Amino acid sequence: MGAQLSEAAEFTELESAAMVAALGAAREGFRGANPLVGAAVLTADGQIVTGHHGGAGTPHAEVDAITTAHDLDIDLSTSTLFVTLEPCAHHGRTGPCTEAIIAAEIPSVVFASPDPNPLAAGGGSILAEAGLTVRSGLHEEDSRALNARWVRSMTEARPFVTAKIAQSLDGAVAASDGTSQWITSAESRVHAHEVRSRVDAILVGTGTALADDPRLNARNHDGIALDDQPRPVVLGNSDLPVTSFLALNPNTLHLPTHDVREALDQLHAAGVRHLLVEGGPTVLGAFFTAGVVDEVFCYQAPMLIGPGRSSVEGLDIGTLQDALHLVPDDTETPAVSRLGPDFLLHFATADPEPAATGSPESGT
Amino acid sequence: MGAQLSEAAEFTELESAAMVAALGAAREGFRGANPLVGAAVLTADGQIVTGHHGGAGTPHAEVDAITTAHDLDIDLSTSTLFVTLEPCAHHGRTGPCTEAIIAAEIPSVVFASPDPNPLAAGGGSILAEAGLTVRSGLHEEDSRALNARWVRSMTEARPFVTAKIAQSLDGAVAASDGTSQWITSAESRVHAHEVRSRVDAILVGTGTALADDPRLNARNHDGIALDDQPRPVVLGNSDLPVTSFLALNPNTLHLPTHDVREALDQLHAAGVRHLLVEGGPTVLGAFFTAGVVDEVFCYQAPMLIGPGRSSVEGLDIGTLQDALHLVPDDTETPAVSRLGPDFLLHFATADPEPAATGSPESGT
Repeated sequence: MGAQLSEAAEFTELESAAMVAALGAAREGFRGANPLVGAAVLTADGQIVTGHHGGAGTPHAEVDAITTAHDLDIDLSTSTLFVTLEPCAHHGRTGPCTEAIIAAEIPSVVFASPDPNPLAAGGGSILAEAGLTVRSGLHEEDSRALNARWVRSMTEARPFVTAKIAQSLDGAVAASDGTSQWITSAESRVHAHEVRSRVDAILVGTGTALADDPRLNARNHDGIALDDQPRPVVLGNSDLPVTSFLALNPNTLHLPTHDVREALDQLHAAGVRHLLVEGGPTVLGAFFTAGVVDEVFCYQAPMLIGPGRSSVEGLDIGTLQDALHLVPDDTETPAVSRLGPDFLLHFATADPEPAATGSPESGT
Repeated sequence: MGAQLSEAAEFTELESAAMVAALGAAREGFRGANPLVGAAVLTADGQIVTGHHGGAGTPHAEVDAITTAHDLDIDLSTSTLFVTLEPCAHHGRTGPCTEAIIAAEIPSVVFASPDPNPLAAGGGSILAEAGLTVRSGLHEEDSRALNARWVRSMTEARPFVTAKIAQSLDGAVAASDGTSQWITSAESRVHAHEVRSRVDAILVGTGTALADDPRLNARNHDGIALDDQPRPVVLGNSDLPVTSFLALNPNTLHLPTHDVREALDQLHAAGVRHLLVEGGPTVLGAFFTAGVVDEVFCYQAPMLIGPGRSSVEGLDIGTLQDALHLVPDDTETPAVSRLGPDFLLHFATADPEPAATGSPESGT
C-alpha cells in the first residue's frame, strides 16, 4: 500500500454490507490458477450491485460489477467500488483493472486485502495517484482466508492442486475384485468433466493409467471432447503401452518420478498453474501427505462395497490427533450438493490442528 | 377397503396438490416404530392446511391437521381431508382417527394407501358407513414407497432398524492406533442423542462395549440423561466387566449370540419396535448383510485418518454389481445437512439392484 492510502479507515455498516456482498460474489467463482475475487458497487442511495471473476480469460470482478452497473444506468460518479482484492495494475489476459476503474469515473474505492502477487500489486497506489479516494482493510481477514490456499500455492511456486475423490459411502474406489465402473452417477461424471475443462493438467499414476487406459480429456454433456484440452500427466516409472490413449496423445507428459514436489516443479516450469489429481489412491495419498492439496471434490455414491480398495492410501496417520483436516468450502456451490443419487462434497484443506477434546457429557 | 368406497376415483389437480402437500408433511416426521403419515385439509376455496405424525404418543396426522384447521377457523363442513395412509380405527396410545374425523364433521376423506397393519385397518369402511364420502388411491405409490421399509419390518415381525455410522471422509471409525474420540463434532453427537431419545433400544457389540464402556443413554444438550431412556442392548458372547456402565444398568439386555435374526426375534418379543444399531463395524456389517437395516444416519467428519478401521466390516461384497445400495432420504431433514463441520447423510436402504452401466462417452 502506498502512503496515499488512508490507514485505519473507518467504515459504515452499509460499506461493510457492500464488502460482504463482494465476498459472497467472490465465492460464485471457482478456485484454480487465479484467486477468488468479488466486487460490489455501492450507490449513493444504498443500492448494491455485485460482480465476480469467473475464471481465466473472463473479466475481472471490478469490470464485471462496473459492466452490470452500466447496464442498470447506475451513476458511478457518486458510487463507491468495493473489491475483495486490491485492483490489479498489470496487463494479463485482460487489461489492468486500475484503468477500467479510472475510465468508469468512480471516485472512491475500498479493497479488503492487498494483492499478494508482486506482478499485479500496486493498484491501490495508482488509483490514489489518479485522484481517487482509496481505503483498504475492510473484512481483510475474510478475504485472506478465502484465498489462503491459492496464496500458498503461489508462494510455493507450484500449481494450485485440486484433488478428485470418487468413492462409495464406505470410502472405497473399487470392489474387492477391482470393479469400479461406475460407482458414481452419470451426473457426477458430467460435473467431473466440467472441473477437467478448467484445469491446465490432469494427473494420474501409472497404476491408474495401466488399469483404466483413461483418456483424461474434458468432454461436454454429449461426450464430445472440448476444443481446449487440459494436458494429461502420468506420474511414475512404469512405461505405458504404446497403443494406450495416453501414449498416443502427443500432449501427454510422463513424469518418471514418485516425488510429488519434483513433479510439481516440472509442471510449474511447463506452465501448469492448476492441476487436477484424479488418483489412484496411492497418488492421492502422496499428494495429501506432501501437504500440497489445496481443494477437494469428493463425489460420494450412496452404496457400500467393502471390503474394497480405499480411496486414499498411504497417509500413514497413526493417531486421531494427526488427522488431515478438511474445511467444507462453499465456493462455487454449497459445500455439499447432490448430483443424481450422489453427494458432492467440496473442501479446502486446512493445516493440521489439535483434535477437539470432547466434554465428558458428550461421550458415549 | 369396504364395498362402500368408490373405486377408480378421479381426482382434480387441486386434490392431487393437497395429497402432495400431505406427503410432504409426512416427511417432516421421523422414521421408527410408526409409519410416516401426513394429512391435509383442502377447503372449498382451495386453501390447504397440513399436519403430520410426530412420533409415538403424539397426535396422528389427521388430528394434527384438523387441530390446525380449527385454530385457523376453517369451515371443515365444506372441506376434504387428505391422508397419506388409511385413517386408523384402533385405540393405540391415541384414540382412533376415524372418531376424530367423524367428530370434526368433515364430509369427505381421501387416503393414498390402505393401512397394512391389520390391527389398524378398516378405517375407510367405518368412515363410509358413517356417511362420509371416502375415496382412495391418490398418489398411492408415493405413500407406499415412503413406508416400504417400515412395512417390511412389520411384515418380518422385527423392530425397525436404524443404523448409525460416524466416520471420517475416508470411511474410518478409528485411527490405526484405535483412537476415535472424537471424529465427529459436538453438533453431530447432540443429533445422535436426539435419535437415541426416540428409539426403544440401542445395540452395540461386545467389542464396542469392552473398548468404549459406553452408557448408551440419551442425553439432552446439557448432557443430562433424559427421563425416558432406551434400553441398552449388547450383542455377543463376551462377558462385560461388572463395573462397566452397561453391566451396572439393570435395564441392559445382553444377547449372547451373533445371529442377527435371532437377536431381532428376542428384541421384538421384548417389545422393541425401533432399534438403533450403533456398531462397531462388525455388528454394522452383520446387520447390513442380514438385510435388516431400514434407515441409516451417517455422520461424516471432514478429515482423512487412513489407514484406520473401516466403519462397516464383513460385508463380503466381491464385485461392484453386488454393492449394497442406499437411497438418499429427505425424511425429517434434507438427505444431507450440516452439523458444525460435519455432514449428516440420511438414507433408506434399497434392495440390491444391478449396477448402472455407463455410456462410453462418460468414461475416463
